[in-house]
Amino acid sequence: MRQSRLFTKTQKEAPKDEISKNAQLLIKAGFINKEMAGVYSYLPLGLRVLRKIEQIIREEMNAIDGQEILLTALQQKGHWQASGRWSDDTMDIWFKTKLKNNVELGLAPTHEEPLTNLMKKHIHSYKDLPKYVYQFQTKFRNEVRSKSGLMRGREFLMKDLYSFSRTTSELDEYYEKSKDAYMKVYKRLGLGEITVVTFASGGSFSKFSHEFQTISEAGEDTIYVDEDKNIAINKEVYNDEVFKLLDIDPKKLVEKKAIEVGNIFKLGTKYSEALNLTFVDKDGSTKPVIMGSYGIGVSRLMGTIAEIFNDEKGLVWPENIAPFKVHLVGLNLDDEDVKVQAEKAYQSLTNDGVEVLFDDRVDVTPGKKFAEADLIGIPHRIIISKRTNSKVEYKDRIDEESQLLDIKNVIDKMHG
Amino acid sequence: MRQSRLFTKTQKEAPKDEISKNAQLLIKAGFINKEMAGVYSYLPLGLRVLRKIEQIIREEMNAIDGQEILLTALQQKGHWQASGRWSDDTMDIWFKTKLKNNVELGLAPTHEEPLTNLMKKHIHSYKDLPKYVYQFQTKFRNEVRSKSGLMRGREFLMKDLYSFSRTTSELDEYYEKSKDAYMKVYKRLGLGEITVVTFASGGSFSKFSHEFQTISEAGEDTIYVDEDKNIAINKEVYNDEVFKLLDIDPKKLVEKKAIEVGNIFKLGTKYSEALNLTFVDKDGSTKPVIMGSYGIGVSRLMGTIAEIFNDEKGLVWPENIAPFKVHLVGLNLDDEDVKVQAEKAYQSLTNDGVEVLFDDRVDVTPGKKFAEADLIGIPHRIIISKRTNSKVEYKDRIDEESQLLDIKNVIDKMHG
Repeated sequence: MRQSRLFTKTQKEAPKDEISKNAQLLIKAGFINKEMAGVYSYLPLGLRVLRKIEQIIREEMNAIDGQEILLTALQQKGHWQASGRWSDDTMDIWFKTKLKNNVELGLAPTHEEPLTNLMKKHIHSYKDLPKYVYQFQTKFRNEVRSKSGLMRGREFLMKDLYSFSRTTSELDEYYEKSKDAYMKVYKRLGLGEITVVTFASGGSFSKFSHEFQTISEAGEDTIYVDEDKNIAINKEVYNDEVFKLLDIDPKKLVEKKAIEVGNIFKLGTKYSEALNLTFVDKDGSTKPVIMGSYGIGVSRLMGTIAEIFNDEKGLVWPENIAPFKVHLVGLNLDDEDVKVQAEKAYQSLTNDGVEVLFDDRVDVTPGKKFAEADLIGIPHRIIISKRTNSKVEYKDRIDEESQLLDIKNVIDKMHG
Repeated sequence: MRQSRLFTKTQKEAPKDEISKNAQLLIKAGFINKEMAGVYSYLPLGLRVLRKIEQIIREEMNAIDGQEILLTALQQKGHWQASGRWSDDTMDIWFKTKLKNNVELGLAPTHEEPLTNLMKKHIHSYKDLPKYVYQFQTKFRNEVRSKSGLMRGREFLMKDLYSFSRTTSELDEYYEKSKDAYMKVYKRLGLGEITVVTFASGGSFSKFSHEFQTISEAGEDTIYVDEDKNIAINKEVYNDEVFKLLDIDPKKLVEKKAIEVGNIFKLGTKYSEALNLTFVDKDGSTKPVIMGSYGIGVSRLMGTIAEIFNDEKGLVWPENIAPFKVHLVGLNLDDEDVKVQAEKAYQSLTNDGVEVLFDDRVDVTPGKKFAEADLIGIPHRIIISKRTNSKVEYKDRIDEESQLLDIKNVIDKMHG
């Protein structure tokens, strides 16, 4: 893409009420726009990152037999009354609204109830199980405070998968499989090393649920990490019974701040019983379907990555989810030879499917171009100017110095 | 995809309150689920169709320099008060909700106001113009009645593009370009022949706006078509002045029912003046930006296509947007030879990137398999059974009879 055509400008300042580092950086670099606390629009560079994170998650969910659907935000109260979650007393983050005839509706903060109801048309027999269904869908949560940028949204993009199983062991097996799939996602996003499986309370069906916690001072959660075992526990289960169960020595636990970037939960028959989702088993008996839920905040992950991967100059995107792979910066473009050379490099990379942001702007100083490139944080930078002659300068986003290289070699490297 | 794994089942009946043909067919074939009137979830087959329509529109919007973003549903009232559209008296389809602190919010039915406000950070000078910005975003409209299935949603997916221009002639030029892009979209969707550019009233800035109307008895609109000129006018502009302006002989106009599948509108400076989106022109003077809006209902298009392309047996998808290109139907799969042959065909097609739904179910009768395949409406069908030996039966969805052909030839044809 030509930067001269990109409509977004970098901003000198983030809004004064924006105190989170992730949103400050993303706003200044022109990736997002703050509509109100916890509500952000995605601009071209930001939407590219969001979609790449989404695609990585999609691939890993498909790899564990997930089938993608798209449920609705608008919710009738009936299904939620059946599970006891319609009342603001039990679910305190509802946004509610009304039809013209005054019938009350809710904006879905999660989707156990409508999906359980939907599955009644598709699950009848043990032969219809197991099934795994997921979506990328906008959730609405009426948070009292929302000060962590993309990390705590009132309107945010989430991947939620739900499993429908015949037996507890079938659920357990999928649950373990999903843990691996989740860790693959974090690894591909560059968060693998600092994300730890964390034991949390499990509700009535299971002793534990699990969170995936990315270590960060900006985190809203506190966890206790056993660095030898590479697991953690959260505050809910910080007690002697759990230490014993997990064979943990509490003296070795290290307290850390962390960002919850995913959670998985054995729901058991809570929703299938409430909404009457049953199947006829091999022996002819009718049983409630055994369910699990598996969530990842897509926009929260984008915020987490922006929060963690940056330096004093700006964002530093991991290659897999950077808005572009290469930032091609043209200087002295009023010089016809330089212009031709830069255009040729842009065409060559683009024709071969390398994603390039081409800074082709003529009326911007080199200093401003480099400062903006640092703020935007694209991993590879190629500079073509009068000084580089038939060569180009190449540097990584985080390199201090650039190297003077043959253009052909650099282009080949970018293709690789 | 293996049909044995697909979680959706075809349904014998659509809900009794579902009177529209498009939703009846899509529900019975397992493409969508009705959550309430005008609110539908997309199941795996349906989501594939929706995303393909979206991608065709995206390609055509990118081709006319559109830059993709994603705005939010939640809206503060300030920007809408500035334009006079916050009140239910002026905008009668609002869904409203509230933050915990009782601050009123709206769910966006359209996005002129928030985008105009956003662009104030990115447009300052004539050098920043023109710019074209679009999104695929879920709209919420509190319709009193919503009985036309996907054709009139309360929650629905829309592409909305907005143009920001320096001069009226720049706007006019883009407006004509967008007309061509829209017609390309309808052509690629198989609706080109029955979709007609329709003159509608244009508001205060322009004499006309334009609708794209697809001729259908199921349409909620009435238009008057001049079949020689291949244009139409709607009810709003059915008058002598317009006949004269457009050089139309009213006696030649044919009244038709039609579905509005797109509309484009010259907004002029209505929103830029209300929200103070200005630029400094070449001569140093400050002027309001000149805007246009360009909408296509993505889910409405899916409903329109389902409404129009079907027969007594079910859906008949155009190839470009069918959920799969090929329906590979295996019969007698308990026969090892047949099973091996069918699996080989599935692998061969899949490996080459042909999208195949493989009916690999063992416990379903041929009669039911064919009836379901007809209902689902995938364009190409390949049948492998004991009867076909080393050959396969091939038919189009709408062919009565199948042909016995060499498997290699059919597979080559599908690759082509």
